[in-house]
Amino acid sequence: MNASGEFDIIARYFARLGANRADVRLGVGDDAAIVMPPPSRELVITTDSLVEGVHFLPNASATSLGHRAFAVNLSDVAAMGAEPAWALLSLTLPRIDEPWLAEFARAAGDLCRRHDVALVGGNTTRGPLSITVTLTGIVPIGMALERRGGQPGDAVFVTGSPGDAAAGLALEQGRLHVTDPMSAQILRDRFLFPTPRCDVGIALRGLASACIDVSDGLGGDLEKLCAASGCGAELDATSLPVSEALLGAVGRELAREYALTGGEDYELLFTVPLARLGAMTHAIARGLGPVTRIGSLVAHAGVRVFSRSGVMQFSRAGFDHFV
Amino acid sequence: MNASGEFDIIARYFARLGANRADVRLGVGDDAAIVMPPPSRELVITTDSLVEGVHFLPNASATSLGHRAFAVNLSDVAAMGAEPAWALLSLTLPRIDEPWLAEFARAAGDLCRRHDVALVGGNTTRGPLSITVTLTGIVPIGMALERRGGQPGDAVFVTGSPGDAAAGLALEQGRLHVTDPMSAQILRDRFLFPTPRCDVGIALRGLASACIDVSDGLGGDLEKLCAASGCGAELDATSLPVSEALLGAVGRELAREYALTGGEDYELLFTVPLARLGAMTHAIARGLGPVTRIGSLVAHAGVRVFSRSGVMQFSRAGFDHFV
Repeated sequence: MNASGEFDIIARYFARLGANRADVRLGVGDDAAIVMPPPSRELVITTDSLVEGVHFLPNASATSLGHRAFAVNLSDVAAMGAEPAWALLSLTLPRIDEPWLAEFARAAGDLCRRHDVALVGGNTTRGPLSITVTLTGIVPIGMALERRGGQPGDAVFVTGSPGDAAAGLALEQGRLHVTDPMSAQILRDRFLFPTPRCDVGIALRGLASACIDVSDGLGGDLEKLCAASGCGAELDATSLPVSEALLGAVGRELAREYALTGGEDYELLFTVPLARLGAMTHAIARGLGPVTRIGSLVAHAGVRVFSRSGVMQFSRAGFDHFV
Repeated sequence: MNASGEFDIIARYFARLGANRADVRLGVGDDAAIVMPPPSRELVITTDSLVEGVHFLPNASATSLGHRAFAVNLSDVAAMGAEPAWALLSLTLPRIDEPWLAEFARAAGDLCRRHDVALVGGNTTRGPLSITVTLTGIVPIGMALERRGGQPGDAVFVTGSPGDAAAGLALEQGRLHVTDPMSAQILRDRFLFPTPRCDVGIALRGLASACIDVSDGLGGDLEKLCAASGCGAELDATSLPVSEALLGAVGRELAREYALTGGEDYELLFTVPLARLGAMTHAIARGLGPVTRIGSLVAHAGVRVFSRSGVMQFSRAGFDHFV
């Protein structure tokens, strides 16, 4: 059984990875981990996979993969307003490559420790490279943010600067060329090392009426939030928070298109009732983080974007001009 | 975004799958599921993957895969003495094949409902076929069974009839031929549809000193239990519970080899202190299930098997005669 030696190697990398948490009674190494949930709390549970050729390019670095595999799950937990706690990792590897594993584990461990996440279990298999993380988070009873809950009139906000990651992916794929190397690096890093907005998600408890993370593109994800909430949305294209790097790289028109349809942002898109806008303004003043109001929910279904050049209607295929 | 239509299909299959549980506040469809853990309980969390060509043959039926993907995780939760509760499913599929998905979901759903498991989330990706399930179980505080905890003198028990599944796999692979079609079908089914011993695991709380599920072979898994418990074990080969089907198919000598080294059994291997053997006998009399005493833990490290023909010493490569 040659596999035993390989498993020992992986177990060593896994066991070291992540934060030490007092609520972990038994970590990596048994048939299952044992954890003690805090009293009077709900748990949120999510899982997401990265598959070579689908979610990352064959030449992707282990550092980026270790970061992204956990970041995309942290982002889901953030979108629920929960504190991340316990993670499991399923790794399918074409071969045991110790330097790759060390780099992967270091990047994953750094991000996990930053968010107080313990890696409590996992498994490894030989096969085409794919990475699945399952993450459990903790939230006070009834305080989780959901996609449903938005009402017509609620203000729509987004964190960070959506569109950067999609431009970074286009750069990685050679579909986009940017002359300024500094801008190019910023955009690439936004794809390779997305920032899960955990602190913002937790701060939005009791403030946001609905929340989703932007993984498939702002327009499409807003459409999902609207569908779950039974309403529509109107966005002001001029208010979209476009980064200097993206603006300099592709110009205003294309920057807005990246922001609306790009995906891979892992920003939070959320709604705030008008009655809580004052509290929201206070939260922003106290350092909530980079959030921008981009529009409002409306009664009429669908997502429409207003700009000086007219109105665009979002559809699954993208945005169509001239509704 | 063609993927959206595909995701809707999967979401429909996922959302229908499994038990309805009152502690699930929000199931499939948001960024994460929300569940309410019961008060004063610990949770056990485990994940296991099935990868084509590693854990199953390319011609494996969707019915078997739907069953096994959940059974192997149920077995891990059973080995901890916990009640299974909430599952997530990550499915990587080469293409959307609706009859395959329907068959997979039916088999998975049947097993989940039988064990009161709710499917609360999941994701799907296009890629080489692989199935990862994460399962959370519930156990009273301090009552979980672990691999450590066995003491020299403890009796060693195993559920069911180990070895059948390995013979069934050999039949599937054409490495073994069995003339009696009934025996062949029994053995194949033991590989294709393993029975997770959830009821036995729960009944062993307070009885067993250590427990592990047999996935890599009885000898190897007993070695892991012994290593975690800081002791060794002596088994009596004549007491190994070999099924009539396996005995008829391969004879006594080979049947014992399958039982000791085969793997894929998903039986429970556990130890009971001598002081609790009376309680254990009562539990068996009250219908605990098919359990057999096969040996004892000893102070000296390693796993040795005694039979009329001599003593065998277990090593990672298998058993060596004449210690």
